[in-house]
Formats: sequence, C-alpha cells, structure tokens
Amino acid sequence: MSAMSVHILTLRCMNRPGIVAALSTTLFGAGCDITEAQQFDAWESRSFFMRVVFRMPVRDGAEAALRDAVAVMAREFDMDWTLRARTRPTRTVLMVSRFDHCLVDLLYRWRISELAIDPVAIIANHPRETYAGIDFGDIPFHYLPVTAATRPVQEARIWDIVSTTGAELVVLARYMQVLSDSLVARLVGRCINIHHSFLPGFKGARPYHQAFARGVKLIGATAHFVTGDLDEGPIIEQDVERISHADSPDDLVRKGRDIERRVLARAVRYFTECRVIPDGRKTIVFSA
Amino acid sequence: MSAMSVHILTLRCMNRPGIVAALSTTLFGAGCDITEAQQFDAWESRSFFMRVVFRMPVRDGAEAALRDAVAVMAREFDMDWTLRARTRPTRTVLMVSRFDHCLVDLLYRWRISELAIDPVAIIANHPRETYAGIDFGDIPFHYLPVTAATRPVQEARIWDIVSTTGAELVVLARYMQVLSDSLVARLVGRCINIHHSFLPGFKGARPYHQAFARGVKLIGATAHFVTGDLDEGPIIEQDVERISHADSPDDLVRKGRDIERRVLARAVRYFTECRVIPDGRKTIVFSA
Amino acid sequence: MSAMSVHILTLRCMNRPGIVAALSTTLFGAGCDITEAQQFDAWESRSFFMRVVFRMPVRDGAEAALRDAVAVMAREFDMDWTLRARTRPTRTVLMVSRFDHCLVDLLYRWRISELAIDPVAIIANHPRETYAGIDFGDIPFHYLPVTAATRPVQEARIWDIVSTTGAELVVLARYMQVLSDSLVARLVGRCINIHHSFLPGFKGARPYHQAFARGVKLIGATAHFVTGDLDEGPIIEQDVERISHADSPDDLVRKGRDIERRVLARAVRYFTECRVIPDGRKTIVFSA
Amino acid sequence: MSAMSVHILTLRCMNRPGIVAALSTTLFGAGCDITEAQQFDAWESRSFFMRVVFRMPVRDGAEAALRDAVAVMAREFDMDWTLRARTRPTRTVLMVSRFDHCLVDLLYRWRISELAIDPVAIIANHPRETYAGIDFGDIPFHYLPVTAATRPVQEARIWDIVSTTGAELVVLARYMQVLSDSLVARLVGRCINIHHSFLPGFKGARPYHQAFARGVKLIGATAHFVTGDLDEGPIIEQDVERISHADSPDDLVRKGRDIERRVLARAVRYFTECRVIPDGRKTIVFSA
Repeated sequence: MSAMSVHILTLRCMNRPGIVAALSTTLFGAGCDITEAQQFDAWESRSFFMRVVFRMPVRDGAEAALRDAVAVMAREFDMDWTLRARTRPTRTVLMVSRFDHCLVDLLYRWRISELAIDPVAIIANHPRETYAGIDFGDIPFHYLPVTAATRPVQEARIWDIVSTTGAELVVLARYMQVLSDSLVARLVGRCINIHHSFLPGFKGARPYHQAFARGVKLIGATAHFVTGDLDEGPIIEQDVERISHADSPDDLVRKGRDIERRVLARAVRYFTECRVIPDGRKTIVFSA
Repeated sequence: MSAMSVHILTLRCMNRPGIVAALSTTLFGAGCDITEAQQFDAWESRSFFMRVVFRMPVRDGAEAALRDAVAVMAREFDMDWTLRARTRPTRTVLMVSRFDHCLVDLLYRWRISELAIDPVAIIANHPRETYAGIDFGDIPFHYLPVTAATRPVQEARIWDIVSTTGAELVVLARYMQVLSDSLVARLVGRCINIHHSFLPGFKGARPYHQAFARGVKLIGATAHFVTGDLDEGPIIEQDVERISHADSPDDLVRKGRDIERRVLARAVRYFTECRVIPDGRKTIVFSA
Repeated sequence: MSAMSVHILTLRCMNRPGIVAALSTTLFGAGCDITEAQQFDAWESRSFFMRVVFRMPVRDGAEAALRDAVAVMAREFDMDWTLRARTRPTRTVLMVSRFDHCLVDLLYRWRISELAIDPVAIIANHPRETYAGIDFGDIPFHYLPVTAATRPVQEARIWDIVSTTGAELVVLARYMQVLSDSLVARLVGRCINIHHSFLPGFKGARPYHQAFARGVKLIGATAHFVTGDLDEGPIIEQDVERISHADSPDDLVRKGRDIERRVLARAVRYFTECRVIPDGRKTIVFSA
Repeated sequence: MSAMSVHILTLRCMNRPGIVAALSTTLFGAGCDITEAQQFDAWESRSFFMRVVFRMPVRDGAEAALRDAVAVMAREFDMDWTLRARTRPTRTVLMVSRFDHCLVDLLYRWRISELAIDPVAIIANHPRETYAGIDFGDIPFHYLPVTAATRPVQEARIWDIVSTTGAELVVLARYMQVLSDSLVARLVGRCINIHHSFLPGFKGARPYHQAFARGVKLIGATAHFVTGDLDEGPIIEQDVERISHADSPDDLVRKGRDIERRVLARAVRYFTECRVIPDGRKTIVFSA
C-alpha cells in the first residue's frame, strides 16, 4: 500500500444541488479517500459550508493536481476554499499582558504535541521578568509596552512581527489592550481573543466584578474572533462554571482562569484543525 | 423518645460576634437539636445570613415558646427572621400563558410529592381548552385574559385570588405578560419568574432568537424574583446547555424548554425549603 | 418550485474509497438535494457509517425509483441501509412499572410535537389506577402483571401487541422487569431501556443506593439498547448531575428522575430521527 | 481594631444535642468571630461533622489558650478535631511518572498563589530529563526508579522524604506505581491519587481504552484518598466531559488530561483548606 498524507479541505458557497456530488467525485478522481466530512446548510443565508478530511497518495505533483481540480470545481460553484496538510502546524503569535495562565496553558499543550501550533513569537506589553518561571524555549519574546501615544508605533511593530513570521494566527491570550481598527482589519479571521465573561453578558472591563455585582449563578468565558466592534466578534467557543453567593470576586477570578484556559485552548485547536469557518456575525464550528 | 417535628429558621442581621452562639444557645435551651445549618457572611454589606434546620419536641406550646425566645434574641441583634414547619407546603399560585411545559412540570413534581407546594390557583390569560390534556384535579382554574385596557381590572382579580387564597408564592411559569409596578410591589420577595435566557444576556422579547442571531454556543434560563425593573430581579437559579451552529431557533426553543423547567423547579424547591434569602439585587441560596 | 419531501438515509458498510461519491451521485441523479450529512469511519472495525438527510421532489414513483437506485449501489458496496420519510412518526410501545416520570415526560413531548413518536400502546405491570392523573388519550393501555410463573404468557402478550401494532420501537420507560432472552432477541436494535446509573458503574438493582454507599460525587443515567446481557447493551446516551455528601438516597432518586427523563427523551429522539446506528457493543450517534 | 488571624477548626463526633452551642460558646468566649460554618449530620453513622472558619485576635498565647478550651470541649463530646491557621501552606510531596500534566498544573497554581501548598519534594520514577522544560525552582527533585525487586528500598526512600520534610500531604499526580500496603498505611488520610476514570467504572489499567471499548458517552476522572484497596479509596472529587463515537482513544486521553488536572487541583485545594473529612468509605467535602 502506498504512503498517504492527510489533508483538510474547507469550502463555502451559495447552496445549490450537486455540491457534495461534485466534491466527492473530484476527490475520488484524484485518488483521495474521505475519512471525515461535515457539512452545514445555513438556511438563513442560503450558504453551504463543508469540511472534508481525506487521505491522498503521496506522489510528486499530487497536491498540485488536486488543487487544480478543486479550483475548477470552485469556479463552477463560486466557492471560497482552503486546503491544508493536517500535519502542518499553524504559525502562531501569542500575545499576553500580566496574567499568564492562558499563555502557560497553550505552551504546555504545544510542548506535549496536543496543539498543532508553531509559536513563532510571544508579544507582551510587560517585560520578560513578569513571566519568570516560564520556559519560552526558542520562541522569540518581544516586549512591546504601549501607551495611548505609542500605540501606532507599537502596533506597527506587532504587524511587522506577524508579517515577517508569516503568522497564520494571532492569539490574544489575556492581552488586555484594545487593538486599533486598522490592525484588526489586517488580522480579520485569524485573531482570536479570550473574553472573561459569558458574552453577551458583561462586556467591557472587569467582567467578574460585574458578574459578582449582578449575582449570577454561573460564570463563563468566550473565545471569539476579534473585530472592530469590541466584544462583538463571532463567537468560537464558550463554557461556564457554577458559582454561588459565597464566591467572592477573587473566587470568580480563580474559577474563571480554569474556564478561560480550556475555552481558549479549544478555540485554538478548532482553528488549527480547520474546524472554524466564519459566517458573518457567527461561526460554523465543526467540532467533532 | 418523644415525637419531634422539624422546623426551619432563617435569619438576617448586621454581622457582629456572638450571633451563632446566641442562636445555638437559644435553640438548645428550647430542647431543639440542629440537624442542618448554613451561614453566610456578606463582607460587602456586612450582613449575616443563616438557615438552620432543627428538630423540636412536639409539645403543647413548644412552638410558641420558641418563637418568644427567638424574638428576644432577634431584638438584641436586630434580626429579620422566619420560622416554618418543614412539612407545611407553600400555598402557591401558578400563572401561565400559552406554553405549558413549566406548569405541567411543576404539577407533576407536586403530584409525586417532590415539591412541597399547595397549588391554590392556576391563573392563565388563555382559556382552559389551551391546556386540554392536563389534569388540574381540584385546583381552581381562572381564565383572566388581558389587554392594555383591561390590565388594571385583570390585575385586581389576580390580587384578589392571591389574597383570598393566602398565597405565599406566585410562580410565573411562562406567564408572558408584564405585571404592573403596583402588583409587583405587593408581591415583592414572593413572585418568581422564569426568563428563557441566561441573564443578563438577551433581556426582553424572543431571547432564543436573539441567541441564535448572536451565535452563542450555550443557551440558558434564569429564575429570578420579579421586581419593577424587568429582567433585573435578584437571580435565584440559572442553568445552560450546549448548542451549535446547526441548531435552528426551533431547536433552541426545544432545548430551552428542558432548561427552563428544571431551573424553575429548582428555584421553587429552594423557595419552599426556605433556602432563598434576598440580599438587595442578589440572593443568598443555601442550596445544600 | 416543485413540492419537496424530506427523507433520511442511513447506511453501513465496510469502508473503501468511493462510497460518498457513489452515494452523492446516486442522490443527485434522483433529483435529491442533500441538506445534512454525517459520516463516521470506524478504524477499528474498518466500517463506514453515514446518515444523509435530503429533499426529494414529490412525484409519483419518486421514492420507489430512489429505493431502486440505492439498492443498486448498496449491492455494490454490500451496505446495510434504511430510508425513511422524516415526517413519519415512529410507531412506539411504551412500557412502565410503578415510577411514571419517564412515561409522563415522553407523552408530554409527544403531545407538544417535540417527539415524532406514534404511541401505539402503553404496557404496564401495574394497574391503570397507578397512573391516575395521567391522560392517556386514545392510546390503548394494557395491564400485564407478571410473576416468574406467568412471564412466558405475559411476554407472549407483549410480543402480540408489538406485532399487531407494527411497533418499530419499544421503550422501557422505567419498566422494572427483566425481559427473557427470547423476547430480547426479537426486539434487538429497537428496544431502548433507561438505566438509573452512569453505566458501567452500579449495574443491577438499586443503583442510587449503591452510589450513595460508594460516595460518588456525580450520579447519572444511561439509555441503551436492550440485549441479553443485562445492563451491557450498546449505550445511546448518558448524562450526570453533581451530588454531595449531604444528599440522601432520596435526594439521589429525586435528582436522578430529572437525569433519567432527559437522557431517555434524547435517546428516543435520536432513534426517531435515525441518528443511532448500532455498531457491535457500541452505537454511532449522529447527534447534530 | 486589633489584628486578627484566621483559623480553621474541623471536628467529628457522635451526634447529640448541644454540640453547636458548646462550640460557638467556646469560640465566642475566646474572642473569636465565626465567618464560615458548615456542618453535616450523617444519619447513617450517627456522626456529626463540622468545619468552622473564624477570626481570632492576634495575642501572645491566644492560640494555645484556644487549643486548651477546644480540648476541654472535645473531651466532653469525644471529638476528633484539627485546628489550623488558614495562611499556613500545606507541606506537600508531589509524585509523578511519565505524564506530567497534573504536576505542571499543580506547580502553576502554586506559583500564582492559587493553591496554598508548600512543595517540599518532587518524587519521580523517571529521570529529571523527562521533565525538561519544567522549572522546578528550588523544590528538591528525587529520581527514584522502581522495579518489583527494588520496591521496598524505593518506598523506604519515599517514606524517608515524607518524614524528613514533615509532609502533611502526598499527591500522586499520575504516579503510575501501586504503593505497598505498608506505605499506604502510613499515609492514610493524607495521600491523594487521581484516577483517570469516573470510578467505580473502569478500575484498573488503561481506563480510557476501557471506556472506548464500552462506548460510554461521557468520560471522567476521580480524585480519592489512597487505601490498600486499589481504586476503592474514599472519593474526594469527580468530574466528566462528553465524548462521542468519533473520539479515538487518543482523543479520550487528551480530553481526560483536562478533567484530571482540574479534578486533582480541586481535591488538593479542598484538602489544604480543611474542607475534606474522611467518613469511612466516603468523604465529607464542605466545598463552599
């Protein structure tokens, strides 16, 4: 049996009959064998979304030939599509402020090969010593402090790092600075933030204190794509945990750390496995 | 061994040393034996809350003597307090509109003696035939339709039913009419509503459609005391369930029904077991 | 636009390249439009499972023609398959013993059209008066008491009811009698039981008392297909709820009722929507 | 206002009237102010359990005087009791094998002061380089490989480390060796293990593979006190996560890591905060 590599294809187009037939015929014709397929028919927008995982024979020119075949089909159906080798890790920039629990968690998952990221840079607005006790290994660390006055310059540096590293994903792992609209625009669809509340409840600052004041019985966290509209970006993943009247704001912060790190880690994993497809204000998440 | 009855005492006062000692001495002096005790020290408001369950010898005048003793202590500490025999069911008015899943659920729990309510009336703004297939047994059913014009008259009828039945609790079991401020004022601390969202997200009308539009990944329901400030009353209980992009608004409504009925049933049970103590915008819930 | 009906096709075969292509081509050729598709590639058994929902033009002979086309493909791939109009409710026999919470719940979900069952019979080993207060409407009720001696006769009656009603599904909604191997054999793949524990923990009798004795911190319920091997049938759905040391066995029974009814209702819904495909000791559940 | 320190008292005795009164009088007499109190009346064993948190004036000899007063009361009621300053961290030995996710997690929580442990030693049966990338700071690391033949010697070394460090707690953070009965006996009530299944399901080796084979729909983890009876010790904490047929054994292992680390972290926190009181085969956990 010949060697096989595994690829992931995602696509999006207006819905009409024949898409699955065309796709499966195209893949079959290229010698590929589908092992996972998920699709979604969004009746609202009449859009069709699909994620297909398949094995492809390893052969010179096989991927190029497949890309050509998919491109033909994509033109016919006016599709947006992506194709990615599953083993290729996602080049990722991690950004952080004072609280490092999400950063530490993502790095750990990367170190044990749970998360297929390739951390090409860590950017912080606090100096390296803030993260004493964390082994960053060979990952370049960039200390980029920021004030209102220096924001344009700082963001130019951020963009420079993103560009030169070829980053495919920027993760705001409790990076507590608002990005400018122009930087957000350049990162659209590839910048994930973790907000420490169950959005749309408790937007803005100090959400755990808001939750405490309101007396809710569950708190949560939300991973979402960053857009110009603060805390309004398409939601990728959320989770909650039970609290009670006896929990102080500090208890909420503590419980919240656990929720934040697992919600963000899931969102990043979904992204790296091509499970997330933006759909306007929402996301399709083929979460297995 | 003499017969014992079980009572529940709740109290609230400004915190200061000696409360628990005074209380336990008072109960011990009255021949009572504490079987459960929960307390909470709200550092914000410097208030102290306690719920105590105890066995008391069944003896002529025992409860009256105990009430006298508690009253003495309560004056010393400037306490609000309640005392209730645990076996006495809570006289309850159930109000409902078209959707009857919460009503059916509460009645079932009452029928199998899970919920210690005594349903003294069912009030609906839809006619009896809306609820065909539900056996109301001997519970008086009141059809009280309402329009903007007839609201004052309808609410006078509601209040009349609450008063004459001696209702201790009014449950808005998906009763989809807003109560007037004057009726709410009369029902303060004893009127529980089920809101079909995870408040404070998605206040107002059609919360499941709001949740669908926003693309959240969990939906919830909230049981709260009714106040003049719509959807802002003190929260008693909340719960959530996971949804995905593939869930239509109808799916959310279906999943929501399950959340609503279990959240409301828990809130009503907590109320009947004297586990809920209002604390300004919040509630203390000694939920076991 | 012509009228469309919605159908669900499930299939199972040994995995090999070309299945999805063959299927989608077959459906496309028959004028069908796929709206949902889920597949699973079980690497262990090298089996392939698929569930496809599609719209089909309403036309004389369309379904027959489709069945023929699917049959051709099925022969080629040696497939097991089922095809069902989505709107057709599942003919269901409900069996119950003393505790009626699951029965009441299923009937309520049926009454509000949440569950696409057609309840063709209720069978109980307790007399009708046990279920006073439940409106069975037009559903035939069969009181079939049973002892060790009368079991063969009673089960012959059960089988007679199942046969003559053309029941596609038998739900043991807290029916507390063990079925004989011969009856189980006749019901294989279409008899669902709710076990009141989180299997494989606490098999056998009085699972809540076992859970209490062991001091677990969560209790659960399990819906599974009935097989000759008691409490070992393929699991369809499970859920749990948190308990504490303060919960008595009675509290566990109370909390368990809520878990049981939602777990069983989900399992029945999955079955009626052709989401469950048995796979040896396990099930594939395409749960949306 | 004079300086106050916070202490935690736990007690256990046969139940009889007057315990709470005696305790609260004793504490009040010593100038202490109760801020939290939880109690449990185990009707089965007729035992009474209590945990009290209180502020005490900082004064020479105050704690000694309080201990004397509690001792007097304890003799009267034949109580087991413990008294501890809340700020004093728990001297803890961490033991680990190849998989370090729980170890890394506990160390992180300790580093950010979430967990009030004082890690006095790390013991591993794998060499230091297995944990490259983890900063152990000043915590002594002991590489103690073990075979059947060397077990007695290795365990003597373990016991030596526990004794000389004055460890109050030993955490088996995925330490995959069975301890001998004699070592277990010396660590009774202060050795916590994390088992990677929802006990009592899937005892023994490779629980995730067992769970996969059985086709359960949720997997879990269990933190328990270690006893001579493997996987049968009193359970402190459990949690679960949903899985599906599509999850491979590797997926279960990945999801399991998240459950394991949060379950173990909670159990350790409960222990350090004196929230766990063993009760035969079970535990009382006053979990806030």
